[in-house]
Formats: sequence, structure tokens, C-alpha cells
Amino acid sequence: MEHNGFTLWFTGLSGAGKTTLARGAEAILRERGMKGEVLDGDIIRQNLSKGLGFSKEDRDANIKRIGFVCKLLTRNGVVAVGSAISPYRAVRDFVRQEIGNFVEVYVKCPLDILIERDVKGLYKKALSGEIKNFTGSSDPYEEPLNPEVVVDTSLERPEESIAKIIARLEELEYVPPAPQGEVYSAEELKAVEGRLHELGYI
Amino acid sequence: MEHNGFTLWFTGLSGAGKTTLARGAEAILRERGMKGEVLDGDIIRQNLSKGLGFSKEDRDANIKRIGFVCKLLTRNGVVAVGSAISPYRAVRDFVRQEIGNFVEVYVKCPLDILIERDVKGLYKKALSGEIKNFTGSSDPYEEPLNPEVVVDTSLERPEESIAKIIARLEELEYVPPAPQGEVYSAEELKAVEGRLHELGYI
Repeated sequence: MEHNGFTLWFTGLSGAGKTTLARGAEAILRERGMKGEVLDGDIIRQNLSKGLGFSKEDRDANIKRIGFVCKLLTRNGVVAVGSAISPYRAVRDFVRQEIGNFVEVYVKCPLDILIERDVKGLYKKALSGEIKNFTGSSDPYEEPLNPEVVVDTSLERPEESIAKIIARLEELEYVPPAPQGEVYSAEELKAVEGRLHELGYI
Repeated sequence: MEHNGFTLWFTGLSGAGKTTLARGAEAILRERGMKGEVLDGDIIRQNLSKGLGFSKEDRDANIKRIGFVCKLLTRNGVVAVGSAISPYRAVRDFVRQEIGNFVEVYVKCPLDILIERDVKGLYKKALSGEIKNFTGSSDPYEEPLNPEVVVDTSLERPEESIAKIIARLEELEYVPPAPQGEVYSAEELKAVEGRLHELGYI
């Protein structure tokens, strides 16, 4: 079965849950017979952007590179799932224009909760000044003005956020509906839970 | 119709005809219902490798980036067509290992003929010392030891080289045979000629 490609782009602060949701959504897309490729900010920095730092210029260059790869995948019928802080609105909008079939998911979470969670210990380092150019503390984050989906991971469990994203993709007709017309089929819920378990989330 | 992805990699000196053959082969692949994406060295330097130069280290980094994108496309069922001088054997072999379904085309042409042709005027600049690190004059080119296809553009017309490549892809069962069992159908020959015309070749 042939599907149209599109790019599903997760933006939000470090630790908000972008990659968890990206991997979870990818699991559902695969269950529905689509091809998906997660382009995680860290993977891309390793493979395409070694040498780039965290200045605005370097961040924008990194996002443009992820966007370029998403464009190639999208126009060949693949679902490209981008997951990167991507703090600057203008470059997100540039990537949207370049790609066309673009769904922006704003992964919201209040800063105080992120500082409390601090899974990778990065906020502590940022607040002590050990890390410079850290989005949310020393660097700005420009919220999306009109994202296709907003999720709030301080209020929703991952399964709920993923369900919201998939429902929106169905509404936009990028994704065929679940076999039984539910948001998740039992198999899909199992696939998502398996994925979250692999990621150490549950 | 679903096909397996693979990477078709063109290596050879500047001006040997890599991109011409890559674009021509892509035209045939499209005629046969496959999805193809040409990743040309120049396009990649613009989009993924700005800032990289032509030292061995930077050249290798550039080739690894092209290889990474080819890998993503290939594993999603797309034909990735790489076209880059890629002078160093070790990094070509690294990319081959990473990708798996990999077909290497060595685009041969004797240096004296390339210097005579000098379509972009680069050999002149290289020989006068105006360009440093130029493959074939000041920088080495390591010939492939065991490429799947060798073409010689000093002896073959582009249509002949492309036919050789397609025949080999059929033999390797990466590409379904032409409808009438010929190397080219009449429509395909037309598509190739159209492409070569667009490129200003004929």
C-alpha cells in the first residue's frame, strides 16, 4: 500500500519528551503499514553536523540539515519524524516551506518541571553556567505560533500525547484510520508500550 | 509495486561524467516505476557539508554524510544514487558496509582526456596551482578494486554506459527487466536522451 510521505516535526525544550513521543508515534505508523524514519537531533549531530556548536547560526544550520533529509524522505513517500529542540521559529518555518507536507508538534512542558525532572542533568549544568547556550535558560525558545498539534507532557501520559498526535494525523488524512475506528487498536497500544519500555520510560 | 532500496554509487575523477550517468540511470529507474534520489556531491556540499574543505579528513566526512543519507533512503525502499569523486577506498568501503545493498560504478576516464575536455576549467586551475587538493593532480584517486560496474567515458557514449549499468542492476536483481526484454525500451531511450539533453550533454 502506497502512502504519501510527510514530515512530523517535534519541537520543544530539552527533556520535554520529544524523542519519546517521536518513537512512540513511529511505532503506530509502522503498525499502520507506513515507513518511518526518526531523525533525532543527537543522531544528526553525530552523523551530519559534527563540528557544529550551539550558536544561533550553528543551530539553524543543524535544523536545515535535518530538514533537507526530511525533504528527501518525504518526497519519496517516507514519513520523516524530526525530533530536535529547534528553538527558532524562522528556521522551523523555512523547513516547513521547503518540505510542504509538514506537521509541527509542539511538545510543551513548564520549565520548572523540566528543571525538577532533569533526566540528563543538563539543566543543573546550564543553571550553574557549566553549559553555555542552553535553550530555556541562557538561550531563547520561540514557541510555535500555529502548530498542528500541542501536547503538554506535564499533564498527559505519553500514550495520551501520542493518541492526540495520531488523531490529528488521521484528521489531516496523512494517516489511515485504525482498523476498528478506535484511536488505538489493542496491538497498537501494545506496540507503543513496548517502545516506551525499550526507551526506559515505563 | 514495492521494490527493495539500494544505493547506486558513482565514483571517479572530476569531469569523468558521474552526474551525467547518475541522472541518466535515474531516468531509467523512474521509467521502471522505482523511486530514485540523486545525491550529487555539489548538492550535498551545499546542503549538508557547508564549511567542509578538501583535506582527506573533510572529504571523508563529506562522503560519510552522503552515505548516511543513502542509508536512510535505501532502508526505506528508495534508490539512492550517490555521485561524488569519493577518492578514498576505505571510506567508500565503509559506506558500502553501512548500507548493505550497494552497487559501485567506477566512472573511468584517462586523465589526459579530462585535462583536454576540462568542462568546468578546474583542471587548468589545478595544474596552475590555483586550486589545491585537486583529485588527479595534487590529490590521489584510489581506484575501486572490485566495483560492480566499470564504464569508460572516453570509449563509450553515455547511452552505452547507462545501458551497461542498468544491465548489471538487472543481473543483480535490483531492477526489474525492461518490458520487452531489451536493454532499453523505446520510451526509456527517449527518457535518457531527454535527460542528457536537459543536462546540455546532447
